[in-house]
Amino acid sequence: MKSKYSLIIILLLISACTNAQQSIQERLGYAKDAKLLILHTDDLALSHSEDSASIHLLEKQHASSGSIQVPCPWFSEMAQYAITHPGADLGLHLTLTSEWKYYKWMPVAGKDKVPSLVNNKGYFYDDLDSLGKLGKPGEVETELRAQIERAKQAGINVTHLDAHMGCAFFNKEFLKIYLKLAREYQLPCLLNVNAFKLLYGIDIKELLTEKDVVTDNVFMAFPPNANTERGAYYTQMLNQLPAGLNCILIHAAFDDAEMKAITVDHPDYGAAWRQADFDFFNSDDFKSVLDKNNIHLITWKEIRDKLTRK
Amino acid sequence: MKSKYSLIIILLLISACTNAQQSIQERLGYAKDAKLLILHTDDLALSHSEDSASIHLLEKQHASSGSIQVPCPWFSEMAQYAITHPGADLGLHLTLTSEWKYYKWMPVAGKDKVPSLVNNKGYFYDDLDSLGKLGKPGEVETELRAQIERAKQAGINVTHLDAHMGCAFFNKEFLKIYLKLAREYQLPCLLNVNAFKLLYGIDIKELLTEKDVVTDNVFMAFPPNANTERGAYYTQMLNQLPAGLNCILIHAAFDDAEMKAITVDHPDYGAAWRQADFDFFNSDDFKSVLDKNNIHLITWKEIRDKLTRK
Repeated sequence: MKSKYSLIIILLLISACTNAQQSIQERLGYAKDAKLLILHTDDLALSHSEDSASIHLLEKQHASSGSIQVPCPWFSEMAQYAITHPGADLGLHLTLTSEWKYYKWMPVAGKDKVPSLVNNKGYFYDDLDSLGKLGKPGEVETELRAQIERAKQAGINVTHLDAHMGCAFFNKEFLKIYLKLAREYQLPCLLNVNAFKLLYGIDIKELLTEKDVVTDNVFMAFPPNANTERGAYYTQMLNQLPAGLNCILIHAAFDDAEMKAITVDHPDYGAAWRQADFDFFNSDDFKSVLDKNNIHLITWKEIRDKLTRK
Repeated sequence: MKSKYSLIIILLLISACTNAQQSIQERLGYAKDAKLLILHTDDLALSHSEDSASIHLLEKQHASSGSIQVPCPWFSEMAQYAITHPGADLGLHLTLTSEWKYYKWMPVAGKDKVPSLVNNKGYFYDDLDSLGKLGKPGEVETELRAQIERAKQAGINVTHLDAHMGCAFFNKEFLKIYLKLAREYQLPCLLNVNAFKLLYGIDIKELLTEKDVVTDNVFMAFPPNANTERGAYYTQMLNQLPAGLNCILIHAAFDDAEMKAITVDHPDYGAAWRQADFDFFNSDDFKSVLDKNNIHLITWKEIRDKLTRK
């Protein structure tokens, strides 16, 4: 029996992204009905704990991709990793909030260039609502562009874009900027018709072109949860994974002093919650369930090079 | 027998700061020949590891004072501590460098206000030489003032000023700004005649007024060192402590994953080196040697309230 605090599975239903002739699997060189999965580690550069755990999963080839928060204190650690591991699939986790209680960062563009994105302390706002109410679209574009340029300057071969806490698709104006930048830099970006409708009330279909790549399904564990049931939660998800382009967003870190302090007084997405993600995706159980279900781990780089930059 | 890597004791000789009538001890209400000591923890807000270890020493009343790096990622942790512990003696460790390899921060004033203080990534320079060559004094003042104002805005009852890596006394122009700000905010600031002469080639006597409080001696362990000999090093220092106003600058943190990652590839001031500082000053041996030598732990707040703001 599951309590109200049991794991919540958000299954974002299949969107209508199909090429008239070919499935996305075929366009990427797989069988028409293949189950493709990007196993994606979010929040890189947030902390050394997050970086260490996520890099471990990437090197073990259990995670296939990850994305970096450019404004965060450990950005240089991930930039160095990207330079020394050119095969790693690393995109940008575009960031417009600084939501942890005692651990903060500022905009890459500099607060004078984007005054509507910072609080009176010079940090990004703690929450999306403040960003949505006060953030001017022109300054959102300035900051997101600064993050992309900073990553390029640091030598990162950026494979894709997505957005921390959905900040760049929080409303339609921001989403248009996100799409504009993805197209300008010829990068695939995380998009899903049903998720954007459900979570942000935005119908993205009218904004899409034939060139945009849209995931069929995006999955993520949401708190509150039971960390002890995480393995069962993901195993069930993988056993039921549909054919198509799937993305699972995970948050791997260690339940150590640094991560506990970052997530202090923040009931959701804590250190133990992240350790539970790490533990399952680090396990042999994960590989077994992938193999059993004939799931192909793929990268955003494949999509970028075979479709976006074709 | 000591190797060339044995502990180096820097004994900064007694400066000629005496009131014609009274010793500084008497002016502070102690016996004329009392041995006064500010045991001072540097680098607060650098990391959770540094904060935790230093707060432990402050709460145990083994450390008597500490100073906060306002631009660092964990500033809010120390600001919250200061607000909830109004008796804690906390000053500002004015900061104009970002010297760790993969862990970085930007100016509080914003990079557009102080472009001569940042590299092409928008961070403070890695080293003092770049700061000294490229930093414009007007922008140094802008940034240091922004750090003081930010601390006040956060609710910190600032007791004193000092400077990380001596950045604010690296040359005479910067030192004048440091003194100007200390006087303007009516705060005592770390000053020592011989140390400033020895380390920075500056004769501060000509810049001082009768109102400025100058330490008689400043001590610090410098790397390279032997961590295992740290207790013997400090014990000897305390057994030989002269009468007067003494300050020992320490760097307490834990030898944990976060601190190891921050100090990676940085041969000096590493995690184990900081743990050795913590271990000695957390021990009963430290208290015993204080008592045996009749050393009085005092705070910068005493100096601020009894002398600077008299």
